[in-house]
Amino acid sequence: MKDVKAYIEANRERFLEELFELIRIPSISAESEHKPDMLRCAEKWKEFLLKAGCDKAEVMPTEGNPVVYGEKIIDPAKPTVCVYGHYDVMPVAPLELWRTSPFEPVVKDGKIWARGADDDKGQSFMQAKAFEFMVKTGQLPCNVKFMLEGEEEIGSPSLYGFCEQHKELLKSDVILVCDTSMIAPDVPSITSGLRGLCYWEVEVTGANHDLHSGIYGGAVANPINILCKMIASLHDENGHITIPGFYDDVLVISDEERALMAQAPFNEEAYKKELDIKAVHGEKGYTTKERTGIRPCLDVCGIWGGHTGEGSKTVLPSKAYAKISTRLVANQNFHKISDLFQHHFESIAPDCVRVKVTPCHGGAAYVSPLEMKAYQAAEKAMETTYGKRPIPTRSGGSIPIVAGFENILGTKSILMGFGLGSDDIHAPNENYPLEQFFKGIETIPYFYEYFAR
Amino acid sequence: MKDVKAYIEANRERFLEELFELIRIPSISAESEHKPDMLRCAEKWKEFLLKAGCDKAEVMPTEGNPVVYGEKIIDPAKPTVCVYGHYDVMPVAPLELWRTSPFEPVVKDGKIWARGADDDKGQSFMQAKAFEFMVKTGQLPCNVKFMLEGEEEIGSPSLYGFCEQHKELLKSDVILVCDTSMIAPDVPSITSGLRGLCYWEVEVTGANHDLHSGIYGGAVANPINILCKMIASLHDENGHITIPGFYDDVLVISDEERALMAQAPFNEEAYKKELDIKAVHGEKGYTTKERTGIRPCLDVCGIWGGHTGEGSKTVLPSKAYAKISTRLVANQNFHKISDLFQHHFESIAPDCVRVKVTPCHGGAAYVSPLEMKAYQAAEKAMETTYGKRPIPTRSGGSIPIVAGFENILGTKSILMGFGLGSDDIHAPNENYPLEQFFKGIETIPYFYEYFAR
Repeated sequence: MKDVKAYIEANRERFLEELFELIRIPSISAESEHKPDMLRCAEKWKEFLLKAGCDKAEVMPTEGNPVVYGEKIIDPAKPTVCVYGHYDVMPVAPLELWRTSPFEPVVKDGKIWARGADDDKGQSFMQAKAFEFMVKTGQLPCNVKFMLEGEEEIGSPSLYGFCEQHKELLKSDVILVCDTSMIAPDVPSITSGLRGLCYWEVEVTGANHDLHSGIYGGAVANPINILCKMIASLHDENGHITIPGFYDDVLVISDEERALMAQAPFNEEAYKKELDIKAVHGEKGYTTKERTGIRPCLDVCGIWGGHTGEGSKTVLPSKAYAKISTRLVANQNFHKISDLFQHHFESIAPDCVRVKVTPCHGGAAYVSPLEMKAYQAAEKAMETTYGKRPIPTRSGGSIPIVAGFENILGTKSILMGFGLGSDDIHAPNENYPLEQFFKGIETIPYFYEYFAR
Repeated sequence: MKDVKAYIEANRERFLEELFELIRIPSISAESEHKPDMLRCAEKWKEFLLKAGCDKAEVMPTEGNPVVYGEKIIDPAKPTVCVYGHYDVMPVAPLELWRTSPFEPVVKDGKIWARGADDDKGQSFMQAKAFEFMVKTGQLPCNVKFMLEGEEEIGSPSLYGFCEQHKELLKSDVILVCDTSMIAPDVPSITSGLRGLCYWEVEVTGANHDLHSGIYGGAVANPINILCKMIASLHDENGHITIPGFYDDVLVISDEERALMAQAPFNEEAYKKELDIKAVHGEKGYTTKERTGIRPCLDVCGIWGGHTGEGSKTVLPSKAYAKISTRLVANQNFHKISDLFQHHFESIAPDCVRVKVTPCHGGAAYVSPLEMKAYQAAEKAMETTYGKRPIPTRSGGSIPIVAGFENILGTKSILMGFGLGSDDIHAPNENYPLEQFFKGIETIPYFYEYFAR
């Protein structure tokens, strides 16, 4: 890949300006008032794909937000890379914790600060710019298909059906995904596994309306107290999840593989210091990396009920709510887990309250074998630009659609991400180091080169 | 009390119009943006006290919201009744559950619907109109002092100091309070005991910022999960509160007194049906009425943390919060309970989180002996207008300042309230039956008559 560094250097400012145009569109898929922004963002992507060198590009409707599809077919006999990314972003609340406006990107301290700077506008835009470089310098060795969705952050509800409908159009030899992290700027890594996900909203109802906490307190069930008790009971004293059958399908990882994983550099003291915590907390018998890499977990992502405003209102509320999610590992079926949770949560409700469980989204875990040609191409690409062999890691995060691609399209994915743990994706002050952004653009063309050989 | 019914009949519409003027001022003491409304409401009360027949009335400053003081001294040798009430009201959230606008009173189905219709604008205004009747018809048998505060719903923080400063001004033989309920429209009762109160806000902090629930989930403490566990541990399986020392000072009620209390009419099936609950819930070994009357309790009045908006955001939040209150019974010292809770809650926090406990307001429980002359005057007054002897009851609610009056001014209070359990004070759709409002105005003058004898 001749002159890739020089091309990046010459186009540096334009790349950033273009990315910022995407970031400025607040394409929050979880909030319905942003529907028009989803369409604007998709149209903007179509424009960029055509400019970058696609022969054709279109905004294709789905049941939800559209998919942006683009392609450049140089020779049907050559291998085809399908680029996957998403143009939707996470909500931004609590807004008061942002140091800069989430949708007005700022470059400071060598980083881009904005919602979507990394996840996934920054990372998917690297793919577009790497493609542009190969096209403009006549070095593109593969056919390329772009598939950019607008619902990743809400579980890709429409993309499964879209893939079913367009199997032929989306046919490729590998799907390249830049939506994960590497260990450190000088420790390249490739995500060889992802956790799955299952998410529910629960509602606990006591009396049919809010009551005076003096007149009724002590005699009528308080749905907040009950909800707390139910949530507390979901873990035992060793941090194991108590839902019957929850661990049944979890694969036991061999001691040998655990020993191998333990070689990845990890400084628990630095980890604790960065998060400002005195102690880590999780399932007994596993290390921190194992707890996020090879073990499932259960977290309350949100809880609310009663008086949450200023002052000390004495109320015995009628309702309490929580959003609860589990992360799943390979071989756990998220449909089965969804049913197990719902059944268990309803079964532990005392008869003084009513409980409603609403399943939200879910997705399976994914594992990418290290023997695969595409994995080895990614390994060599990173070795070329970083000067060292990347470490295979298992991420605690989830990209449920990646397991979907395998099931529906029969295509494996490669998760070559350039994010860092400090990028605060899904949190206030999301950021993405310029160094990672440009290094990603530099590395991706080598993946194409080695994959085409 | 000659012609009291006729006077009420002749002035019925005016009484309501005047009350509505007070209700329309949104005097929510817990919300700082309503500060100007507190002053407007106090000035309006001063105007009404002068119109009703006070010789003088003034809005007196305190460290917080002002106290409205008014008096009519007919003869220093005669007994003096001090009228206590409050012009502040509870917050109105959740607004969407109100069927009518909370500060635009509506009369429908024989009831006034509005925030403050009962608690305490409606009930304290009965006292003003009963006083007006006695003055205008030349039948006032006692000296009268009005003391109306604007901070009852936030625990009367300034009234304690105000009483200390104005002991001489507030000197009286009894304090008459209309801020409680009776059993039913045809079952008059007098509140002979009130529970005390202690209220805290707690904050649990995990990592120093919100984290991605996939990347960190399972390895870093989730403050919502931890808070739920801590709250769940505050009750044991029998519904007893587990804070060490919490019950130490609770007086054991004799079996004889419990048997007497059990005679008050109470239909548990109707109670459950009204609240739409399948089962009551509380401390083992006590009846529903005992659980609210003679036993302390602990309730979470509000909880919040993480993502509480639309959609399924996968976040491992940095912080979780709860507002927790206990209701106390006679002999429990709220300062001691406040310290016990704070110490206990901090001590049960695991070292993976930080916990902050902020004591909010508190107040002691109160008991009014049935042998007291003032109690007997109230009993006879209700017997006169209702045709049956009122039952002494112990309310589960709290008016902390009532214990304060006893400590600071050395004056006992009489809690002759005309509210009903269905008035939904502190909740959406607060209401007050017209029948209770006018019956209160009719009954109060007889209290003066019997107390002056």
